[in-house]
This record gives sequence, structure tokens and C-alpha cells, in this order.
Amino acid sequence: MPYSYEFERPALAVDCVVFGLRPSAQDSAALSQPSSRLVVLLIERALQPFEGRWALPGGFVRIDETLDRAAERELVEESGLSIAYLEQLYTFGELKRDPRERVVSVAYFALVNPVEHVLAAGTDAAKAEWFDVSTLPSLAFDHGKIIEVALERLRSKVRYRPIGFGLLPELFTLTQLQKMYETILDRPLDKRNFRKKIASLEFVVATEDTERGVPRRAARLFRFDQAAYDALSRQGFDLELI
Amino acid sequence: MPYSYEFERPALAVDCVVFGLRPSAQDSAALSQPSSRLVVLLIERALQPFEGRWALPGGFVRIDETLDRAAERELVEESGLSIAYLEQLYTFGELKRDPRERVVSVAYFALVNPVEHVLAAGTDAAKAEWFDVSTLPSLAFDHGKIIEVALERLRSKVRYRPIGFGLLPELFTLTQLQKMYETILDRPLDKRNFRKKIASLEFVVATEDTERGVPRRAARLFRFDQAAYDALSRQGFDLELI
Repeated sequence: MPYSYEFERPALAVDCVVFGLRPSAQDSAALSQPSSRLVVLLIERALQPFEGRWALPGGFVRIDETLDRAAERELVEESGLSIAYLEQLYTFGELKRDPRERVVSVAYFALVNPVEHVLAAGTDAAKAEWFDVSTLPSLAFDHGKIIEVALERLRSKVRYRPIGFGLLPELFTLTQLQKMYETILDRPLDKRNFRKKIASLEFVVATEDTERGVPRRAARLFRFDQAAYDALSRQGFDLELI
Repeated sequence: MPYSYEFERPALAVDCVVFGLRPSAQDSAALSQPSSRLVVLLIERALQPFEGRWALPGGFVRIDETLDRAAERELVEESGLSIAYLEQLYTFGELKRDPRERVVSVAYFALVNPVEHVLAAGTDAAKAEWFDVSTLPSLAFDHGKIIEVALERLRSKVRYRPIGFGLLPELFTLTQLQKMYETILDRPLDKRNFRKKIASLEFVVATEDTERGVPRRAARLFRFDQAAYDALSRQGFDLELI
């Protein structure tokens, strides 16, 4: 085989931007009106380089695993979270992004619900915590830039794909649904127009259930119907959610 | 430095999906009504593996060049084309995608105008040719899959970003503009609605020129104004082109 690969090879890593929604502290008790914040999972680095700095969960890709599998493995090892949605984001290959040597990183973005239980922390993670995306600490490597790109993707994609449901519990109120969009898009939506839009979407389905712990005027619970969405999607249905 | 990277490393490559528009053979003379086809650039492999098969232009990433730079270098070496638009598409990392060993490929997609002059061909390319995307030959590696993903990105992105102008000459008629969208989206657009939509876009600007070689009723020529688009874009202008 007339093949010799004579080039020095970059190391190959994956890094994961995990987003979640968290009720704002001041009114987390008011379930029917949950004002929420968009948060991202960071781990504190236990090793050099950037020891003690916050970073995205991630690590090197093994020779016998796909990129998706490497991202899933790192998320389990470093967070213990169960992931509702995972997609490849972008591959970052600037020459000096890692002070040790050339490391190319395939970044992923993931959505989880709920955000509560972070087990943390693998070999190179001291602890794991959720941070409000608007008040991030100074990050290791180019991870601040990676989060910016992930936020841009999330804000753009949530408008024409039903990925935002990955941030909600399986059953949700229309108020929770609206707050999810408002939190991601960072602007208020008109309630009347929003409800009219949602009512037109056959894949947001009312259930028989209402929210719990609310004695009267409890709101109806809805669910996302993946099969109904897939069927519409195959017909070339043009989704513009918001 | 307590760091040792003990894993065996995949090789890292870039592959480029280059799209162009070509007038359909039967009416290439009728400049004002150019029915067009979407074509993609392929090179014929001069070496194993897949010797003699068609493949995307591409090659291995050097340790001292960024991913973008590697894509640009391969395009110059293997096609000589000047590229109007280049963006990273997706990174393909299936385990057996290359029969030699593990190769992870960062795919790019590019737009060019015109499609005519392909100089071709680097070390591992025997010749280069344009193929209609609807009648592709059997391709090397997973390059058929990569082209599918690129087509999906192009068809989706052209609707909300002005990237399609990269497929047109600097000055174009509104008929050319409409045919470009029709060719990419693979469906006819209503002329009246299309013209109304375009008239509302401040970044599609009429020039003083009209098309050449047409003695009477020559159509007005337009240009894309990047600065006007950027200004609108910064105001959070919501582009829905088509």
C-alpha cells in the first residue's frame, strides 16, 4: 500500500457545552410562573494546565471510539448527567489553543433537564458546577469562545427545530414553554401570539394532567410528540416555531 | 508538567465540498433566462485507497496550520479555484471510514463563481471535474454522505443567510438571483412574490448597468451590498430571504 502518513499529528479532544434551565432564585417556589436562567456546566480543573480554572467537561478521543461516543463518555465520567439532546457544534483548531501542544477539539452542545444533580468529577475535574451564562468566570483554553459559539447555535436553532423541549421536563405548562423560549432568546414574547402559534403546532400535545401542588386553577400539562413532529418534518413542513 | 498524552492518535484530514452553478446545456446561450444546475467539484484519485474513484478535494492537516488554512491550501493545490465562500461543515469520525487507519475528517463547504476554470490536480488527484449533484458517481470513503450533509446545510442556510450570492457573478439580474434560489431549493418560486421580497431587502442594490449582449430590453444588474447587510444584521434584523 503506497501510503505513509508522514505528518506529526495533532491530539484530538472533545469538549461539551451542557446547557440547562434553572428557576431564578427569587421565585423558584412559584411553579406556574417560573422565571428562569440559562446555565452551563463547568468543571474546575484539578491538573495543569489551567489548574484551578473553570473549563468545559471534555477529554481526549480514544482511537477506538467515535467522536459522539467520546463526548457521551466524558459527560458521564465528569458529570453523571443524563443528556436529553446532544449535537456536534464545531471543531476548534487554532494553533496555540492548548499551551502543551497542538490539540484540535471537536465541540458538542448538550441540553439537560433537570439541572440539579451533578455528580462530578473525573480524573482531571476537581468539582462541577452550574454557572449563569451571563456571569461566567474566566475560563481555561478557548472555552469562553466555544460557549459563545454554542449560545449562538442554540439561539438560532431553537427557532426552527424543536430542540428546546430537551430543556423542559417531559410534561410542562405553556407558561414553562414560553419562559424557556424567552430565556434562550433573551426577550419577552407576546403571550397571545405565542399561544396561537403553539396551538397550531400538532406536535405540542395537551395531556389529561394538570400541574401538581396547585390547589385551584392548576394549568394543563403538555408534552412534545416526537412522532408527530417527524411525520410533519418528512412532509417538508416548514417549522418556524417562534 | 504532569502531562502525558498516552493515546494513539487518529490522523486528521480536511475535505471540501465545493458547490457551483452551471447553466443547463440546452439554454446556456439565453443569458436572461439561465436555467441552472447545482454542481459539485470532484477529483479522481490517483493513489490507493480507492484509486480511480471520484472523491472530494482534501488532504491531511499539517501540525502548523489551522483547519481553515488546511482547507484553503487543499483547494488551491487540487483545484486552483478562487473561493467566494468557505465555512466549516461538520467533523466526520466514524471508525472505519478510511480503510488504511483511523482518519478523522473536518469537512468544509465552499461556493464558487464561475465554475469554469478547474486547473486540478495535486499529488493524489488525477483530474478534477464538476458533477451535477443529482447524478453523482460512486464516491470514495464516506464522501457521498459528506455531500448529503453539505447539501442539507446549503439548502437550509441559504434561506436565512445571504450566502447564495457567492454562487453569482458580482453583478446579476433578478432572474439570475431567482434561478439561483430555485436551483438550490429545487422548487419554483413565484416571480411576483420573489421580486416583492427582494425589493424589501436593502442589501440587494440596483446598479446603473444592464446586462450585456442583449440589444433591447436588457435587464437591470444588481449587486449584493455586504456593508448594508452587516448593518442590518447588527440591529438584530431578522432575515428570512425566501
